[in-house]
Amino acid sequence: MPIMKKIYSLIMIAALFGTMSVSAQQSEQRLTPALMARLFPAGVVSPDYNKDGSVTFRFQAADAEKVELDCQMFSERKPMEKDARGVWSITVKPEVPDIYPYCFIVDGMQVTDPNNMFIFPNEGFKNSLADVRGDAPGMQDMQDVPHGKISYRYYHSKTVNLERPMCVYTPAGYDPAGKEKLPVLYLIHGMTDTYETWFKVGRVNLIMDNLIAQGLAERMIIVMPYANPYPEIAASGRFVAQDMMGTDVFCSEIINEVIPYIEDNYNVKKGAKNRAIAGFSMGGRQSLACGLGNLDMFRWVGAFAPAIFGNEYETNFANGLYEPLKKAERKLELMWLGCGSEDFLIQASRGLDAYLTEQGFEHTFYNPGGGHTWMNCRDYIELLAKELFK
Amino acid sequence: MPIMKKIYSLIMIAALFGTMSVSAQQSEQRLTPALMARLFPAGVVSPDYNKDGSVTFRFQAADAEKVELDCQMFSERKPMEKDARGVWSITVKPEVPDIYPYCFIVDGMQVTDPNNMFIFPNEGFKNSLADVRGDAPGMQDMQDVPHGKISYRYYHSKTVNLERPMCVYTPAGYDPAGKEKLPVLYLIHGMTDTYETWFKVGRVNLIMDNLIAQGLAERMIIVMPYANPYPEIAASGRFVAQDMMGTDVFCSEIINEVIPYIEDNYNVKKGAKNRAIAGFSMGGRQSLACGLGNLDMFRWVGAFAPAIFGNEYETNFANGLYEPLKKAERKLELMWLGCGSEDFLIQASRGLDAYLTEQGFEHTFYNPGGGHTWMNCRDYIELLAKELFK
Repeated sequence: MPIMKKIYSLIMIAALFGTMSVSAQQSEQRLTPALMARLFPAGVVSPDYNKDGSVTFRFQAADAEKVELDCQMFSERKPMEKDARGVWSITVKPEVPDIYPYCFIVDGMQVTDPNNMFIFPNEGFKNSLADVRGDAPGMQDMQDVPHGKISYRYYHSKTVNLERPMCVYTPAGYDPAGKEKLPVLYLIHGMTDTYETWFKVGRVNLIMDNLIAQGLAERMIIVMPYANPYPEIAASGRFVAQDMMGTDVFCSEIINEVIPYIEDNYNVKKGAKNRAIAGFSMGGRQSLACGLGNLDMFRWVGAFAPAIFGNEYETNFANGLYEPLKKAERKLELMWLGCGSEDFLIQASRGLDAYLTEQGFEHTFYNPGGGHTWMNCRDYIELLAKELFK
Repeated sequence: MPIMKKIYSLIMIAALFGTMSVSAQQSEQRLTPALMARLFPAGVVSPDYNKDGSVTFRFQAADAEKVELDCQMFSERKPMEKDARGVWSITVKPEVPDIYPYCFIVDGMQVTDPNNMFIFPNEGFKNSLADVRGDAPGMQDMQDVPHGKISYRYYHSKTVNLERPMCVYTPAGYDPAGKEKLPVLYLIHGMTDTYETWFKVGRVNLIMDNLIAQGLAERMIIVMPYANPYPEIAASGRFVAQDMMGTDVFCSEIINEVIPYIEDNYNVKKGAKNRAIAGFSMGGRQSLACGLGNLDMFRWVGAFAPAIFGNEYETNFANGLYEPLKKAERKLELMWLGCGSEDFLIQASRGLDAYLTEQGFEHTFYNPGGGHTWMNCRDYIELLAKELFK
């Protein structure tokens, strides 16, 4: 019986693997040894996390001429080596344990790691995520603490006349009908990211679980809307001129749709001083416009490597996109700006920081190393969350 | 100003697109025209849903020699054609509007569609999802009805000593503290699938929203655990012999961890007659073992193309993996079996159906066309959900 069981197992693994992973092979219902070998060739594990903190990436491609690892641990691609079974591999160790996006470059073609279930949600590329742990758990790591939850919610937006998605974080012990009402952070992704990116890449739920468990952050709800309605509008067959630089559609969606939905459906504190808005890159631009432009709605504003250009902030304070500078300074509880020194958008953040300083506008400017990455984003949200609603 | 704005937009789109999608290029902070052209070459839209119900797939690969579409609409791969810009494309129309997994085969290499944010969650391959709508919305389509939510929950499993994830569907208007207590369906994915697959591919939340809105299904909570703990155990650095055919670890996890967690944290009806278990493929095998083996816990059992072999069900009823046949027949509220005629596991389902019929065991056997696919799975869950808890 054990032998039969083992044979059955092998057949089934190959069978299920085959039919589910190689769709066009579904017409081949016979499990020949050749098919089995092709479908379940080498038991490739990737990424494979080693005890010394290094990680081994593997990719099965017997016929490829060149396979490289393109990982945000490094600023350049790393060549991988092929073994006799046709499995390409490389073992690397990052300077800092973190979660790094990566893909394989197979004869010049960008390929997601087929053996890694953790994917970077994005409209325009597909990366996998390598989650390299340190000796001590990081703030973004799953720990044995009370866990909040991420919920996928769907609401009808009159602004764009569509059913739209959002992710909502509620902390452990959140009670929809209890006495505790929570403040809300509206947290916006970057261009080509989606409403899932702050959850799946930003790990905002785990960062908050750990911060709250350690008493380092206030309990809050975090709402992650889908800041880009254009793909959905296009998919619905209607045409709307896209204005990715503009913030009108975004601000209307947040203020007229998302906030009322949240305040109708969650046990939250209302009023501007209980609302924050922050975002990364394009989402930083949107957060500045929506936050600084609506001080009756938000009193806490965060911008992570915001996509602003030249000295447009001066114009924005003057022309009404942002409310007048003196009014903003008087009303805001927190103006938080973060940008890495290697970020390609650093000049605008440095300019905004200098301008606010020159104008006597109280604000925080966090300027670590690092580039326009989600490693930096996790750092920004951790630091901002520690300041909010205090 | 409009011209400057347009130029800024273009630069920023290329810049953000570039740095976020091609990680190793992050060291190139200068946006040369050549880099822009490479990073944002042709504004490729894929999949592009046409008004006549067809869909156009596109893939940018100027240097590729051969690109094919491998889509579960068809049993064979379809050649794509390259235009002067290096964009490969094909327009196809499925016989039935549905959600079809697909990938591109680029010079023999399986590649996910970089421009499609909808991904099939899986441990061992990466497919994209083409969501082809019909003239009237299907049960799996987003409609303007009250929406339930999917929540990502995390619990500490003593069985495997890990923090583990699950997805939980609660219907619109679910009240954690209200008078209405709900029955629970435990819904299990297939081998190499994850706890996200019934949500992201199965669309079980939208199917339930629509069924409930039309009065066709009872209100219920649906719990989607992660049936395969082995990758997590391995990632945590411990070793456990994998027994994918065995159901012991799975049943222990469901009964000792998942059910108590749900009954502690949700407003549910307790008792076997308020619990159902169903699953696809490997999850069908697990549901049969866990359901038929624990009639004091479950009274509703569903198996979708279950991974059972030969006539093992006879042995299973006899050797204690399932409770004795007569007892099972007396206690069960519903025994629901579904399998497509082209499914490679159809023989076992036909055998189980014939055996149950011969034994006078009341059950449902649904045997449509189709193979071992998630198109069929959505059909199975819709039909089962209409029967449950009535």
